[in-house]
Amino acid sequence: MTAEPIESLKFLTPDDVREVAQCFGTPVFVYDEQTIEAGVRTISSLPSAFGLTVRYSLKACPSAAIVCLFDRLGLCFDASSVWEVHRAVRAGIDPARILLTAQQAVFDDGLLALLDAGLQFDAGSVRQLEDYGRARPGGDVSIRLNPGFGSGLVRRLTSGGPESSFGIWHEAIHDVERALESHGLRLVRVHTHVGSGHDPGVLVRAAAAAIELARRFATVQTVNLGGGYRVKALLADPEPDHAGWAAMVAGEMGRFAVETGRELALELEPGTYLMANAGSIVTKILDVTTTGSAGHTFLKIDGGLTEILRPSYYGAPHPLVTVAAQAEPEPRPAERYCVAGHCCIAGDVLTTAVADVERLAPVALGRAGAGDYLVVERGGAYCSSMAMRNFNSYPDAAEVLRRRDGSFHLIRARQTLDQIVANERVPADLRSVSTESSHYLA
Amino acid sequence: MTAEPIESLKFLTPDDVREVAQCFGTPVFVYDEQTIEAGVRTISSLPSAFGLTVRYSLKACPSAAIVCLFDRLGLCFDASSVWEVHRAVRAGIDPARILLTAQQAVFDDGLLALLDAGLQFDAGSVRQLEDYGRARPGGDVSIRLNPGFGSGLVRRLTSGGPESSFGIWHEAIHDVERALESHGLRLVRVHTHVGSGHDPGVLVRAAAAAIELARRFATVQTVNLGGGYRVKALLADPEPDHAGWAAMVAGEMGRFAVETGRELALELEPGTYLMANAGSIVTKILDVTTTGSAGHTFLKIDGGLTEILRPSYYGAPHPLVTVAAQAEPEPRPAERYCVAGHCCIAGDVLTTAVADVERLAPVALGRAGAGDYLVVERGGAYCSSMAMRNFNSYPDAAEVLRRRDGSFHLIRARQTLDQIVANERVPADLRSVSTESSHYLA
Repeated sequence: MTAEPIESLKFLTPDDVREVAQCFGTPVFVYDEQTIEAGVRTISSLPSAFGLTVRYSLKACPSAAIVCLFDRLGLCFDASSVWEVHRAVRAGIDPARILLTAQQAVFDDGLLALLDAGLQFDAGSVRQLEDYGRARPGGDVSIRLNPGFGSGLVRRLTSGGPESSFGIWHEAIHDVERALESHGLRLVRVHTHVGSGHDPGVLVRAAAAAIELARRFATVQTVNLGGGYRVKALLADPEPDHAGWAAMVAGEMGRFAVETGRELALELEPGTYLMANAGSIVTKILDVTTTGSAGHTFLKIDGGLTEILRPSYYGAPHPLVTVAAQAEPEPRPAERYCVAGHCCIAGDVLTTAVADVERLAPVALGRAGAGDYLVVERGGAYCSSMAMRNFNSYPDAAEVLRRRDGSFHLIRARQTLDQIVANERVPADLRSVSTESSHYLA
Repeated sequence: MTAEPIESLKFLTPDDVREVAQCFGTPVFVYDEQTIEAGVRTISSLPSAFGLTVRYSLKACPSAAIVCLFDRLGLCFDASSVWEVHRAVRAGIDPARILLTAQQAVFDDGLLALLDAGLQFDAGSVRQLEDYGRARPGGDVSIRLNPGFGSGLVRRLTSGGPESSFGIWHEAIHDVERALESHGLRLVRVHTHVGSGHDPGVLVRAAAAAIELARRFATVQTVNLGGGYRVKALLADPEPDHAGWAAMVAGEMGRFAVETGRELALELEPGTYLMANAGSIVTKILDVTTTGSAGHTFLKIDGGLTEILRPSYYGAPHPLVTVAAQAEPEPRPAERYCVAGHCCIAGDVLTTAVADVERLAPVALGRAGAGDYLVVERGGAYCSSMAMRNFNSYPDAAEVLRRRDGSFHLIRARQTLDQIVANERVPADLRSVSTESSHYLA
């Protein structure tokens, strides 16, 4: 028992949880159209000096229905690989509304065709800038700047500074000038992304560095600040003040306009901000075990690293909520639990300490047992898309969209074993020595 | 420049690397039949008192060709989920040669059919034991014991002790007795697995605890010590003395036989031991960037977290080797590099410090540039099977088997974008507002 506040469900009701589990099975991702729309409205109305373009960061949750929903809501897109561009285009997105910022950019026929169709390119290195220039001399281009500093929840989420390989190092701008000149390129956008879960103060400094670079290149029209904006997920999380830093950036751009007569547009690339709290992972509790008086009580669920890696990978906390198998009149009393996933690795635990994956941190949950449900909140961003898919041969979970009218629609069917092994081939001489087992084939 | 020793290729030659890259594309996993066979020979000949059964741990690398190869070599199998059992059976494995030890065990029709076909079951909790007893009263069963202590490279690889949810807590043996009795079950095997990369001294203590439990249950015939055996991967790694602890365990079993007249058989469940050094990941270097005099020089490759998570996830070091794009008469001088993967997250780095994922640790590599290759060694276990598959929408890499005659055979084709999105569905009202882009569909 504890006085610690217990997390509650975000957009699902306990009845919803039971309905979704029964209709679609567990584990299952559920995304909420209404929460997504609210996020789009909020971020689109942040203060800006001369216009704001919001690009949804596809890697946060690239499912076609989610991408189409953002398209319908009028957003543009941030792609982190050419595969993401192909995937979005396949879902119906106009390439001209996508900006590609990738570690891997190979100017093959596929990428060239996308550029012809209007795809915008952001060079993450001098080599990429040169390659682009050779492929499309005289074209418009962006560069991603590493301003020499960054900020994030942990080092692995810090994408600026000397430890980060992303973008063009701020001391290498003369190489940029040379490349632009030799290929007749026009630098129209400066992009920077300092990290995820970053300190807003660092973001404002990065914006200032990008604006400063725009001073040096008269063709720059847009400053893009990437994503990584904090959300309030846990009860203990402060409400982030995004309007605060946005106003500071708008102020910088206003001063720049007064000094130079140039009105820079702002771009943001939220993924977590738009999707994190718009997704829940519904799992079933299979078992409750204990490791004695000096140990823990573990709830074991039928999902885990195969659906959500964030707590185990970098100690990102997720609200956890238990839901009774059947409706009950009274809430159950709280107990302290660790929550373990279904994979055979001790790392499959959802209750790690913040930014300290080697330490377990039990949480207070409504008392639960086998057959009850456990909902992982903040499950919409970097969960389905950034997991140990198929580890222990578990199939990919289904994805469901909760529409505005409260109805649930399957947007990704659960994977089958046939699909998991579809590309495997066995050399003839190695095939099936135990042929007597062939009648067990699925 | 540095005096630090430079790692070298394990089983591929530089010509092989270039050939594989050209024939199959990069990134690509290459597994080596000869190394696999040598590992089977070595572990099968470890000292044991009254017989040794080796079970390949399917989760290390579950590709059908690899599973068939171990089958042909006479090994049995360790499955960590019922899905792994189905998958192995589909590849031609007799269910009677598989032992299932899973966090998630639901006695549905699929599992019951496998039990009927001979699948052996290892209960990881008292509830699982009860469920099994209800499903198959009077049957043979194993239990997994948490002896109250464990050992592993990090906590996330330590699967014994109070922080681990695996197995039946050593103080709960009276519950085991009660369950066995009430369902007329016969306990034939005690299983324990203390962790991965464990201290052999802890393993011997765990073996002693399992043997002690066998004293209490006269029906026990087998002690299974799980997997997690260390390998020598880096030049700096010591050669592990597996014969040493195996002889100690054999000694314990010998004394037990003298005292009780019972000859216990030994089982081991290696995954890493058999596959780690039998696999290499061939990638191409796309870019070389720098973060200034106080920073690093980064090699950027066309693989990363999508193929290998271990360095970023728990600081597991892998030997890295650069290979020139074309054959060269002289080896190139060494440089210190960090190696970054192709995903858009600062965590996609292969050069982390050992067991300290938040710190970068540059390594000495033969000087390399874009177009050269980087080979990640020790890439056969927990790489293809335990990665951030499809993050940033990158397709799963191909897998290739190098046969004894040196020929390379495709055993898993590269995934296509069609396959990545195969299960996605878009509600009709959300479909393609930008229909004009439909002619870009792949």
